[in-house]
Amino acid sequence: MDNIKNYINEHKDRFLNELIELLKIPSVSADSAFSNDVRQTADVVKLSLEKAGCDLVEICETDGYPIVYGEKMIDPALPTILVYGHYDVQPADPIELWTSGPFEPVIKKTDKHPEGAIFARGACDDKGQMYMHVKAMEFMTSTNQLPCNVKFMIEGEEEVGSINLGVFVKNNQEKLKNDVILISDTGMIANDIPSITTGLRGLSYVEVEVTGPNRDLHSGLYGGAVANPINVLTKMIASLHDEKNHITIPGFYDGVEELSREERDEMAKAPFSLENYKKALDIDAVYGEEGYTTNERNAIRPTLDVNGIWGGYIGEGAKTVIASKAYAKISMRLVPNQDWENITELFTKHFESIAPAGVTVKVTPHHGGQGYVTPTNSTGYQAASMAYSDTFGKKPIPQRSGGSIPIVALFEEELKSKTILMGFGLDSDAIHSPNEHFGVFNYLKGIETIPLFYKYFTELSK
Amino acid sequence: MDNIKNYINEHKDRFLNELIELLKIPSVSADSAFSNDVRQTADVVKLSLEKAGCDLVEICETDGYPIVYGEKMIDPALPTILVYGHYDVQPADPIELWTSGPFEPVIKKTDKHPEGAIFARGACDDKGQMYMHVKAMEFMTSTNQLPCNVKFMIEGEEEVGSINLGVFVKNNQEKLKNDVILISDTGMIANDIPSITTGLRGLSYVEVEVTGPNRDLHSGLYGGAVANPINVLTKMIASLHDEKNHITIPGFYDGVEELSREERDEMAKAPFSLENYKKALDIDAVYGEEGYTTNERNAIRPTLDVNGIWGGYIGEGAKTVIASKAYAKISMRLVPNQDWENITELFTKHFESIAPAGVTVKVTPHHGGQGYVTPTNSTGYQAASMAYSDTFGKKPIPQRSGGSIPIVALFEEELKSKTILMGFGLDSDAIHSPNEHFGVFNYLKGIETIPLFYKYFTELSK
Repeated sequence: MDNIKNYINEHKDRFLNELIELLKIPSVSADSAFSNDVRQTADVVKLSLEKAGCDLVEICETDGYPIVYGEKMIDPALPTILVYGHYDVQPADPIELWTSGPFEPVIKKTDKHPEGAIFARGACDDKGQMYMHVKAMEFMTSTNQLPCNVKFMIEGEEEVGSINLGVFVKNNQEKLKNDVILISDTGMIANDIPSITTGLRGLSYVEVEVTGPNRDLHSGLYGGAVANPINVLTKMIASLHDEKNHITIPGFYDGVEELSREERDEMAKAPFSLENYKKALDIDAVYGEEGYTTNERNAIRPTLDVNGIWGGYIGEGAKTVIASKAYAKISMRLVPNQDWENITELFTKHFESIAPAGVTVKVTPHHGGQGYVTPTNSTGYQAASMAYSDTFGKKPIPQRSGGSIPIVALFEEELKSKTILMGFGLDSDAIHSPNEHFGVFNYLKGIETIPLFYKYFTELSK
Repeated sequence: MDNIKNYINEHKDRFLNELIELLKIPSVSADSAFSNDVRQTADVVKLSLEKAGCDLVEICETDGYPIVYGEKMIDPALPTILVYGHYDVQPADPIELWTSGPFEPVIKKTDKHPEGAIFARGACDDKGQMYMHVKAMEFMTSTNQLPCNVKFMIEGEEEVGSINLGVFVKNNQEKLKNDVILISDTGMIANDIPSITTGLRGLSYVEVEVTGPNRDLHSGLYGGAVANPINVLTKMIASLHDEKNHITIPGFYDGVEELSREERDEMAKAPFSLENYKKALDIDAVYGEEGYTTNERNAIRPTLDVNGIWGGYIGEGAKTVIASKAYAKISMRLVPNQDWENITELFTKHFESIAPAGVTVKVTPHHGGQGYVTPTNSTGYQAASMAYSDTFGKKPIPQRSGGSIPIVALFEEELKSKTILMGFGLDSDAIHSPNEHFGVFNYLKGIETIPLFYKYFTELSK
């Protein structure tokens, strides 16, 4: 790929400005208040793919938000890369903790990003990382260097479970046919320690509702005499972990892959400072399942976390009430070989079974997905490794991530191709949190690295 | 008291309309958004006392909402009754569960109130019950039958802990001097089973905050590796009760009065149907401390209830976040001999001590108050019993209540007089809940009974 560095230098400001405009649209898929914004974002993505040189670009309607599909087929004999990304973002709350507006992107310097980072919801997850692919495409087509066929599938419901994408993929296997799937929606260890994600955790996300008395009650007149749904919910949730922080749901660990001592020793070689980790989070101790290190706990072990809880009076001051209902959102991160639908069923059965008399319990599954592992000896992994080696000057480290991209396992099942996770974000980029950001260095390095993947993948596929 | 029934019949509609106007003002003391309404309510109460025949009525400013003071002193040789009530109300939420607006009073018939009940926040607690005293006063002065001196002290901060009333009482012992304190802010067993409350529980109300990492985190990247403040909070709260539903805070039960078998047998004679109780609340079982009946659990035993809990993402849909903070509002109902300040301290110490490494805990006391017992052989109790016997045609039953009026213990300490709790509400009146109401029968029966208390108390004091 000739002149890529020059091209980036020349168009750098425009690349940043275009991303900034995209980040201004609050495409929060979880909240229907933003539905017009989500749809508008799809239109902007469509236009950007057309400008980048796709021959065919479509807004594909679904039962939810549309999927933007684009392609440029130059020769059926050449390999085809399918790029997946998402244009929707997580909700921005708690908004009061943002130091600048979540949808008013600004570039600020940070310790990890001395060259500056773009602060906005979606900067890293995933508008920024998705848009690297659009700009890499622009470079390859405008300089006549696109070495193979390419398809884009950019969806708007990743943050709410990709349910309609699943249907779309099942119904469009021919259209989406490819030799490798390329996704930038993960991270790397540090700007000077490139890494490629080779494992993802699965996910089961449920909402629970505990109902006690048929109305809110005065805690003086009824306190102590009826089951308080909030107290009961805390007891039920607390019981889901034992004193060693193992999850107590019967059958939960069935089939969970136990890594060998050698594999764990290999993982432990990745650079990691527990002191820096604690310092960055301002905590005096880590916490988790007995018998595993921090990096094992958040990558190769399944977890159960409450993501939200609410019930009773949560306003200013005090109200002496026993609430009729209490709620929680609970997610479980799963490892390969745990089937998310089975885990959701095990959770539901167990949670219902531990409800004491005096309350009723309802469990509503939100969404889920399977875990995934990419073999490091695959053509795709090798091509990615060579691309990073060129642009970062060192070989990337294969790394398991604790996060989930539920659709990856489905891609393999339906499209029979492997996914390569070329992520350029950092763990400290605060995705899903206030003050999400994405390094300018990382954004531009992504645009520089992606065309090399195209090149090496095409060469290795010959 | 001559002609009281006739007087009530003649002025019934006006009595109802005046109360309805008072209920229209949303005097929610817990929420500063309503501060103008709370102050306006004080002005309306002042005017009503002037019209009812008080010689002196004052708005007494405090550091919070004002206290309305009124008096009519007819002869220093006669006894003085101090009437206490409050013009503030509980927050109305959850508003969506009200069948009519909380501040748009309407009269509707119910099973318990075939003659109709006024539905509005504060109808029973305490605007309706407080206003019975104003109308009873009007009757006595306008018919020249006031048999003794009377003082009114109507405050605006009962629902937020009466902190400024405490200061006012301490600083105005001479002004508030009295022979008995009369309060209508409790209930009775049924419209055909009059009862007088002889015991109140104390209260300690605290707010807790658990802080984990310094920002919200992605539950995939950090899940399982750091203490999740919500999971930790549920574990901490769950541990506050053991498997027998005893409270586990060390020292919590020290000094708690254990009633004798005889006293418990006496209590058990009050009419009560567990089946009806469960049916009214739509629950399949009651729940509470092992070894005690439902009526014991909510009257003579201390309790710990979560009144509100929140943390993480509680909006529509799903967000895979580990919150930085989780919160709960927790109240403990106390029995006589438990000192609320001591209990608050024990709670704080214990709650801080059970926080695991990886989180910090903050406990903020909201307010509290001591429990109280009225002796049934006191002059005040006897006068009240005679008044009820006249108007209901049967002797009232002495009854312990699970609720708290924290200021009652302070009245005894500072003003050295006993409080008589002449409540006319029913447990089913949904105070502190959506659709609070107060029976028209109860309202008018209160106005009828109160002057007889004045009469008998004056006679028995001779």
